[in-house]
Amino acid sequence: MTTKAPLVVIVGGGFGGLAAAKGLKCSPVEVLLIDRSNHHVFQPLLYQVATSVLAPGQIASPIRSLLAEQANTSVMLGDVTGVDSVSKQVIVDADDKVGIRISYDYLILATGATHSYFGHDEFAAFAPGLKSLADAESLRNHLLEVFEKAEIEDDPARRQALMTFVMVGAGPTGVEMASAIAVMTRTTLRKDFRRIDPKSAHIVLADMASRPLGTFSEKLSEASRQHLVSLGIDVRLGKPVKTINEDGVVIGDERIQAKTVVWTAGVAPSPAGKWLGCEVDRAGRVRIQPDLTVPNHPDVFVVGDTASLDQGGRPLPGVAQVAMQQGKYAASSIFRMAAGQPPLPPFRYFDKGNLAVVGKNFAVLQSAGFQFSGFVAWLVWALIHIQFLAETSLRFSVFLQWVWTYLSGKRGDRLIIRQRSGS
Amino acid sequence: MTTKAPLVVIVGGGFGGLAAAKGLKCSPVEVLLIDRSNHHVFQPLLYQVATSVLAPGQIASPIRSLLAEQANTSVMLGDVTGVDSVSKQVIVDADDKVGIRISYDYLILATGATHSYFGHDEFAAFAPGLKSLADAESLRNHLLEVFEKAEIEDDPARRQALMTFVMVGAGPTGVEMASAIAVMTRTTLRKDFRRIDPKSAHIVLADMASRPLGTFSEKLSEASRQHLVSLGIDVRLGKPVKTINEDGVVIGDERIQAKTVVWTAGVAPSPAGKWLGCEVDRAGRVRIQPDLTVPNHPDVFVVGDTASLDQGGRPLPGVAQVAMQQGKYAASSIFRMAAGQPPLPPFRYFDKGNLAVVGKNFAVLQSAGFQFSGFVAWLVWALIHIQFLAETSLRFSVFLQWVWTYLSGKRGDRLIIRQRSGS
Repeated sequence: MTTKAPLVVIVGGGFGGLAAAKGLKCSPVEVLLIDRSNHHVFQPLLYQVATSVLAPGQIASPIRSLLAEQANTSVMLGDVTGVDSVSKQVIVDADDKVGIRISYDYLILATGATHSYFGHDEFAAFAPGLKSLADAESLRNHLLEVFEKAEIEDDPARRQALMTFVMVGAGPTGVEMASAIAVMTRTTLRKDFRRIDPKSAHIVLADMASRPLGTFSEKLSEASRQHLVSLGIDVRLGKPVKTINEDGVVIGDERIQAKTVVWTAGVAPSPAGKWLGCEVDRAGRVRIQPDLTVPNHPDVFVVGDTASLDQGGRPLPGVAQVAMQQGKYAASSIFRMAAGQPPLPPFRYFDKGNLAVVGKNFAVLQSAGFQFSGFVAWLVWALIHIQFLAETSLRFSVFLQWVWTYLSGKRGDRLIIRQRSGS
Repeated sequence: MTTKAPLVVIVGGGFGGLAAAKGLKCSPVEVLLIDRSNHHVFQPLLYQVATSVLAPGQIASPIRSLLAEQANTSVMLGDVTGVDSVSKQVIVDADDKVGIRISYDYLILATGATHSYFGHDEFAAFAPGLKSLADAESLRNHLLEVFEKAEIEDDPARRQALMTFVMVGAGPTGVEMASAIAVMTRTTLRKDFRRIDPKSAHIVLADMASRPLGTFSEKLSEASRQHLVSLGIDVRLGKPVKTINEDGVVIGDERIQAKTVVWTAGVAPSPAGKWLGCEVDRAGRVRIQPDLTVPNHPDVFVVGDTASLDQGGRPLPGVAQVAMQQGKYAASSIFRMAAGQPPLPPFRYFDKGNLAVVGKNFAVLQSAGFQFSGFVAWLVWALIHIQFLAETSLRFSVFLQWVWTYLSGKRGDRLIIRQRSGS
């Protein structure tokens, strides 16, 4: 072994980056995965951490331990701040070291997305989103605290504002959060207070669109709307959220006093497009070619939520399945290049279906032309989410927790923990 | 029911306060428990949260849910700032309400202890202690981060400082932390790094005393010292820690560069003595009478780590068992007063024994005249700690986690999560 193996740098340890790293396990390359956090998070269950059902450790795994057995792979905790595609280097801040340059032979950018307030960045301070474990823990602390505050509040208007919860955006996250809060007030918190009745919480799900879960069929949208209403959720459709501040929101012309507003609407891609200086779509996502590389950069792949690729005339959705399939494809493609084999046929996304959960016992499912809602869809949802967790031990642990919470109404992690600043 | 039931205010939801609240379940009184956090923590296992074995939710339970079935009991999240024993009121800050006054008929102060730096408060910034879940989470983040930083550090001296861990104080917490870090470097972290070898970590356990675990017999102290050394721990006894700063510590005349220093030495009682303006011992603990009340205040009980009571010529130790037995006694005593029954005989502490764990498979145990160390003591330690957890679901969950960690070497909660400041 005199020639040095080519180095593949992967930025991001989400679904796309992790799939790429695992796909390179047996390739004749060295792999370096860089992420700004030490763990891979199963984002579809973040709302269960925010609502105290699951503990952070049940939906997250250290990236290092997921890749420990892969001898050709290293992991680095660092914040990528740019790419120099001329000298083929990524630029990383790590610890107190700023602007470390790491040379790559191949680069896979799987840098994901963050919240977008559609030009209203002033909303961010009052309507946090849900993208990381830190977001979920902050929201968990907040949700538990407003009930504590309501219990000692004598003024009825202030008490009602503390017990009002507004989700802005009726996509899967908004629907899941609204229904999870409803279930929490009706089960876990039911007997725990003496002055307030948690069941009297006012839960609002707002969207400018005319139906919730817009990526599902109209029939399933309507089924989920009805189920949301049966949970006591105030579903407000077709009107824009005009203002969000510390007192609450204005939806259409109506002001709602609320101490909790959660942003479950838009997402914005990572700055990967800016780093590369390449063409992006309207949302800012990198326009990639059917082989997932960036035009004129055959050694740079972009995958997942930060990439834009049309299939059948429509852009692929920003979901975990797309990211995982793209990460795997990028890995195979690099394997072939490194081994001198002919290139793969263009990437094709295989859509296994679409699922969203609405509270306890109810989900909507559409896949390959058939669609249904209710308890069976909910069971399918639960099984699929358990199956896709990154580690066997987590599957076991989440399964037991769900059975326990389902039967007892108790939650696994109903803790207010405020870290002090600094270390 | 025309007469209002007397109100018992309990301050603190630790072992003492919780035992008192539970003991008043069937008493003809109203109970209000006030704590500044929403959860009861099983402090003896905090070090396992700090070393990523257990998740915070596995050793903590919401105080509200622990007392939800007790119809005569309310819970309040608030920070007690004083007691007015003349007008019989406690003074509480809660949310944005400062100086709320709550009148009591009986008061139980179970306000515990915090770290004491023995007059060296400047050490606090560099040598955090381990008393709350927030402390444990901060330390967990820090311990995981120093290995990440060491992995990317090129300077050998700085790398060594990142991989040096100093425990100041060789009581049970210091011994447990030092051995838990040693086990972590030899099991969980073993295969996860490419540039550093976690096993080369330098773990120092320092104490001015001439032996570790000073409350145990000399024989058991020596057995644990030998086991610590066999784990590769650098046990430094008989020399004072003179300086602690951002670079490390000075023990005797020797400087040790270390980026991690944990304060496992002294504790200081809560300010209960100041609130009451009553006699305190040298450490600042309230001198209570054999019926656990404060002299001249037959309606004020002080229990647990913040109380000072001699038995057999020696002060009772600041351990969970004492707090629990005292809390239960105070509850019975109030029950009798409220029911017009004759008073209890004076409080007697029944010492069930003393246990400390040293890493994997080894503990020391002394109880009722017999003493032993090794694997069997470790099994006893594990069983007793599981048994004393507050909820059945936690016992089950901790048991499974321990079996899993024991067999696989993997940990349950190896996550770096830094909350942003604010909410």
